[in-house]
Amino acid sequence: MKIEGIELIRLELPLRYPFRTSFGAVHEREVLLLRVLTPDAEGWSECVAFSTPMYSSEYVDGVAEMIQRFLIPRLREAREPTAEQIGELFAPVRGHRMAKSTVETAVLDAQLRTHGLALGDYLGATRERVPAGVSVGIHDSIPELLEAVTGYLDEGYARIKLKIAPGWDIEPVRAVRERFGDELVLQVDANSAYTLADTRHLARLDAFDLLLIEQPLGEEQLRQHAELAAHLRTPVCLDESIVSAEAAADAIALGACRIVNIKPGRVGGYLESRRIHDLCQANGIAVWCGGMLETGIGRAANLALAGLPGFTLPSDTSASSRYYAQDITEPFELQHGCLQVPTGLGIGISPDQNTLTALTTTRQWIAF
Amino acid sequence: MKIEGIELIRLELPLRYPFRTSFGAVHEREVLLLRVLTPDAEGWSECVAFSTPMYSSEYVDGVAEMIQRFLIPRLREAREPTAEQIGELFAPVRGHRMAKSTVETAVLDAQLRTHGLALGDYLGATRERVPAGVSVGIHDSIPELLEAVTGYLDEGYARIKLKIAPGWDIEPVRAVRERFGDELVLQVDANSAYTLADTRHLARLDAFDLLLIEQPLGEEQLRQHAELAAHLRTPVCLDESIVSAEAAADAIALGACRIVNIKPGRVGGYLESRRIHDLCQANGIAVWCGGMLETGIGRAANLALAGLPGFTLPSDTSASSRYYAQDITEPFELQHGCLQVPTGLGIGISPDQNTLTALTTTRQWIAF
Amino acid sequence: MKIEGIELIRLELPLRYPFRTSFGAVHEREVLLLRVLTPDAEGWSECVAFSTPMYSSEYVDGVAEMIQRFLIPRLREAREPTAEQIGELFAPVRGHRMAKSTVETAVLDAQLRTHGLALGDYLGATRERVPAGVSVGIHDSIPELLEAVTGYLDEGYARIKLKIAPGWDIEPVRAVRERFGDELVLQVDANSAYTLADTRHLARLDAFDLLLIEQPLGEEQLRQHAELAAHLRTPVCLDESIVSAEAAADAIALGACRIVNIKPGRVGGYLESRRIHDLCQANGIAVWCGGMLETGIGRAANLALAGLPGFTLPSDTSASSRYYAQDITEPFELQHGCLQVPTGLGIGISPDQNTLTALTTTRQWIAF
Amino acid sequence: MKIEGIELIRLELPLRYPFRTSFGAVHEREVLLLRVLTPDAEGWSECVAFSTPMYSSEYVDGVAEMIQRFLIPRLREAREPTAEQIGELFAPVRGHRMAKSTVETAVLDAQLRTHGLALGDYLGATRERVPAGVSVGIHDSIPELLEAVTGYLDEGYARIKLKIAPGWDIEPVRAVRERFGDELVLQVDANSAYTLADTRHLARLDAFDLLLIEQPLGEEQLRQHAELAAHLRTPVCLDESIVSAEAAADAIALGACRIVNIKPGRVGGYLESRRIHDLCQANGIAVWCGGMLETGIGRAANLALAGLPGFTLPSDTSASSRYYAQDITEPFELQHGCLQVPTGLGIGISPDQNTLTALTTTRQWIAF
Repeated sequence: MKIEGIELIRLELPLRYPFRTSFGAVHEREVLLLRVLTPDAEGWSECVAFSTPMYSSEYVDGVAEMIQRFLIPRLREAREPTAEQIGELFAPVRGHRMAKSTVETAVLDAQLRTHGLALGDYLGATRERVPAGVSVGIHDSIPELLEAVTGYLDEGYARIKLKIAPGWDIEPVRAVRERFGDELVLQVDANSAYTLADTRHLARLDAFDLLLIEQPLGEEQLRQHAELAAHLRTPVCLDESIVSAEAAADAIALGACRIVNIKPGRVGGYLESRRIHDLCQANGIAVWCGGMLETGIGRAANLALAGLPGFTLPSDTSASSRYYAQDITEPFELQHGCLQVPTGLGIGISPDQNTLTALTTTRQWIAF
Repeated sequence: MKIEGIELIRLELPLRYPFRTSFGAVHEREVLLLRVLTPDAEGWSECVAFSTPMYSSEYVDGVAEMIQRFLIPRLREAREPTAEQIGELFAPVRGHRMAKSTVETAVLDAQLRTHGLALGDYLGATRERVPAGVSVGIHDSIPELLEAVTGYLDEGYARIKLKIAPGWDIEPVRAVRERFGDELVLQVDANSAYTLADTRHLARLDAFDLLLIEQPLGEEQLRQHAELAAHLRTPVCLDESIVSAEAAADAIALGACRIVNIKPGRVGGYLESRRIHDLCQANGIAVWCGGMLETGIGRAANLALAGLPGFTLPSDTSASSRYYAQDITEPFELQHGCLQVPTGLGIGISPDQNTLTALTTTRQWIAF
Repeated sequence: MKIEGIELIRLELPLRYPFRTSFGAVHEREVLLLRVLTPDAEGWSECVAFSTPMYSSEYVDGVAEMIQRFLIPRLREAREPTAEQIGELFAPVRGHRMAKSTVETAVLDAQLRTHGLALGDYLGATRERVPAGVSVGIHDSIPELLEAVTGYLDEGYARIKLKIAPGWDIEPVRAVRERFGDELVLQVDANSAYTLADTRHLARLDAFDLLLIEQPLGEEQLRQHAELAAHLRTPVCLDESIVSAEAAADAIALGACRIVNIKPGRVGGYLESRRIHDLCQANGIAVWCGGMLETGIGRAANLALAGLPGFTLPSDTSASSRYYAQDITEPFELQHGCLQVPTGLGIGISPDQNTLTALTTTRQWIAF
Repeated sequence: MKIEGIELIRLELPLRYPFRTSFGAVHEREVLLLRVLTPDAEGWSECVAFSTPMYSSEYVDGVAEMIQRFLIPRLREAREPTAEQIGELFAPVRGHRMAKSTVETAVLDAQLRTHGLALGDYLGATRERVPAGVSVGIHDSIPELLEAVTGYLDEGYARIKLKIAPGWDIEPVRAVRERFGDELVLQVDANSAYTLADTRHLARLDAFDLLLIEQPLGEEQLRQHAELAAHLRTPVCLDESIVSAEAAADAIALGACRIVNIKPGRVGGYLESRRIHDLCQANGIAVWCGGMLETGIGRAANLALAGLPGFTLPSDTSASSRYYAQDITEPFELQHGCLQVPTGLGIGISPDQNTLTALTTTRQWIAF
């Protein structure tokens, strides 16, 4: 791809409700968009990093700095690399997968638009719509939680995921299971809030027939997850720990998980995501697509990925209205508990220019 | 892809020299080509099956029957599937991967030509040329073998692979190593000619610093290969056993191999080949691309695959002249021991119509 | 055995009821019989392949082609091989076990008749009768299923096997268990319809005290079956995966099953079936004999095998009337839930010539 | 500790010779010092990050930003934490161990000075001097390499470490071993420049009786290191992979290494370094202390650590003159191949104010 320039666009999007997890509450979403301009098309992507380095070591300002200072120069020096070559081009830079993903995805989008291909078709999506799950944050009380879950079920979500943390685990799960019955597809997400010493406590969740427990232990604790998994009937799903196809291969070899949550930003992009999907499928490991409070730009690309055949569990690809009163793209809406895999070229969607302009805090153009 | 029709074309290509392996000698290559016609492009592929079911359970006539009778009807019933959807479409048919690969590859070729993409770029090739190894059959005597190897080295091949079988193993390998020195990149291919009881005998090959020993035991003997590998210093490479990404995952999990020979026809196509490549790379397993006496049509596609970053060992992608006095495409020629990854659209090459006509024995057109 | 010629006979037998499994419904049975003529006796066998390659890669027409084109020439070139030598004679042909079994079994039948031996005695049967189970296909509703099971129990079957598939599993099993009580010997057969990601769902079957769950995952997924088995209390039984004694040895070593369903056609014949029986017995693994909608020809031979001492579970050797209004042999009938092991020479039975003539579609004689 | 303020001081130190490793050449050292001011003492530390994110994901400017923006606010909010409490205080920030180490070490230094303790005594050093190894970069030719090694041996270094990379491995090692004989204590450092597919090549180093091979594979490839280690006689030592005591525990459990290189900056500080030392000692794993081109500030603290009893191999704690014509502290000098463990309070040394002033590029004072 010949690249004429890259634009970094910063926005602040108010969240409809603060989102609380085991590592804190988020009230508004600081968004970093990347626009790449090529002779025949422009490509868009969204960085998944949060404003602070509490979920991952990457944070929005750090990503912006990394892109400008280390990644764009490498891209400029290369001779019109294809999106598929960017991984190798960026490999000498250690870590910083969210930053790398942001650049690669925008170039891939432009490349696919140039060649007249939709991202879903390119990645190998075989389904037209994907069942949508919803992630329910930690609430102040169980009645409030039950009310929130009722609301989501009324909207048609196909699966409920409860955020848990020490002090907010057995009882909320019990309450939801009892209220909504055995047929509710229910899973929990611990965001690394427990330790291996909590094994006995977490085994109490076995009573509630959960689809999975997500990332109970620390990001780097593959071996401890394997130990934990051997003591739980609830299948262990890894999220933060799966930073690459190599990490997935290790997790599987160690018996650390039976399910993987693929977040494209966290693993370095959609190509690495496909590699993880393929690897998991070859090993009989189910995958689903996690969410990072994406706007429509990131959501669209995630839906393309979630159309692949190994995504057999509902994904955290909820409707735009789950998080935002006003999205920067045409909103995604639930239809019978599903979202459509976009069929337009590339990621299949672009920001609404008026909305974008209204919400933008800074824009920076880097000419090539 | 909208498909207007599929043509099955049968040829007989005389081999320059008979090719002897542990399961017999081949004197001429019966070739099955598949041409798919779509509104915007035609796509080509070549079936890798041999005339008889001695290397694999598939053979040319059986593949042609399978394609016409079971695969084409599935393709016709589907609503213009993309190449990426064909795998799932054909999954209910058990086995018959060579037949499936033939159909999928031609559709992929047409699709890529339609979208203006080269197969190498689409698959993620990161190199412009790939080092070429040559496979040297079983000879009547060691002097004849040495003469043949000398010839290949003079042509510039980057690696020598000797076919071995009981009675033609230690001594030929010793003779080649002694004549051509420690720097010669040398490997052997047993085509399943040994049993686990030959472990001690095969360990004698450890003395010759071989790059690998390929498929010493039977196709279905993953577990026995793991046992053998534990007793050899020479790395075990699997070929016939790797029929899918799942089989590769199993082989790796069992410790059955440290290297994989990917033959796209054997595994069901180039998409599954990429999955195996990705899986192996994530596990630190080296791969290379095997050959099945392909004409330029199959060779071109193999070169695109061999451009991927995990193909760190020289492939059996030799020059056309290795096998054929006259190929059906423009011939591939060695340059400094390498072949170029084609850069044209799709597989990057098409048959020469005059040559094709001259060599064709039968053609069959199936309109959609 | 000196062979004077081989006849391939094709029939169409209407099934009494369509038989539905996870891979589709069968309405009539296309049968391929093989008759071998020797100086002193004729031998009969029946090919177990179905008309389409959905249950296995072999299908009736493909088997007929394989026999004529590759197996018979090998038989003809060999100098009057015994039945016991045929396995090695056919080994260079990869796969195609159903075809090989068809030839070997007919030769074995002729040989035993020549020598005045019954197949059961020759194989080592120690029982005169074997308990018969029945395989119950997928029904349109649970009431219809319960009615069908009631019928089979009234006929005296010793064990019920329910075909299951996603969407037809927990509830039908629960209904049958609840209606017929804890004493019913009940098992399920999934015919590869699930993936390892369904582990949690399949574990819900643990509540119903099943004798076994048969082939939940894919034919080639030995390692994944081992993983699944570690999470189920219901014993895993393998069927499609057990294609040879080697495959059985691998399955046992990997912990992939606690029970094996031996289908002689699938494993290449009755001699390989005996080897699998012996190997399982040596490892404490129970076996039973599966069925493939056989006519009396195949059924008779299966009963001989099922008389061996390791066949400790009821076999799918149901009465002829289970499938056919009119069989091509004298029908097999249930007596106190059992069928008799035939005591005549060879397989102990021959087709009724009038019926055979009436149902035959084509016959082909190949003189030696 | 009550903290009055923190100063970040940036310097540029010219290296005596460019230092080449598998990831590039360094010509001058960009240094970040941190000075913490408390009522009774000031504490000093040095950040080990390089200017670019090629050795680790952290780089000097990123570390400075992290300290100011995320770590100092946490420190300020806490109520006079002890150095020992800082690890937990910073734990919610993911990764960024070099930044965390820089803050913790300066606070620890101030705390020890306040209490009249030397760092070596506090950590548990049992020796007064530690044998010094030297790390020898990649040279342009083998004669130049031999000349460099001769020089270091003349200076009295107790052990030679050669940096290796593909194309600069077997021959340089052979040349050094042949020239300097079997008694030379020799090891190699690959800085992740190889892949598991190079196993056979790396096994050729087994011929040269090396003390260890350091970090042959990628930082995150613990499992692949275990696989490699099983095929090498040369002991594998891990460096980049050991980012924490947990990572060390995993590496040991997986059999990924027999030796650990502890770099305090990389693991988050001297307290975590002591934990890794203790864990390794409990498992019989030897440790030594690596270097990151430290000035006297970092070097002094490393020497205190290297005095602990588990540091049984020579460390990369070379004389100041190895890298710098003029250090910012009193220089460390070799005595009989050893360096002294500092005995002064805290890290036992402070920058020379005149030199510091002369080399400083920026200083930033953050009052508490």
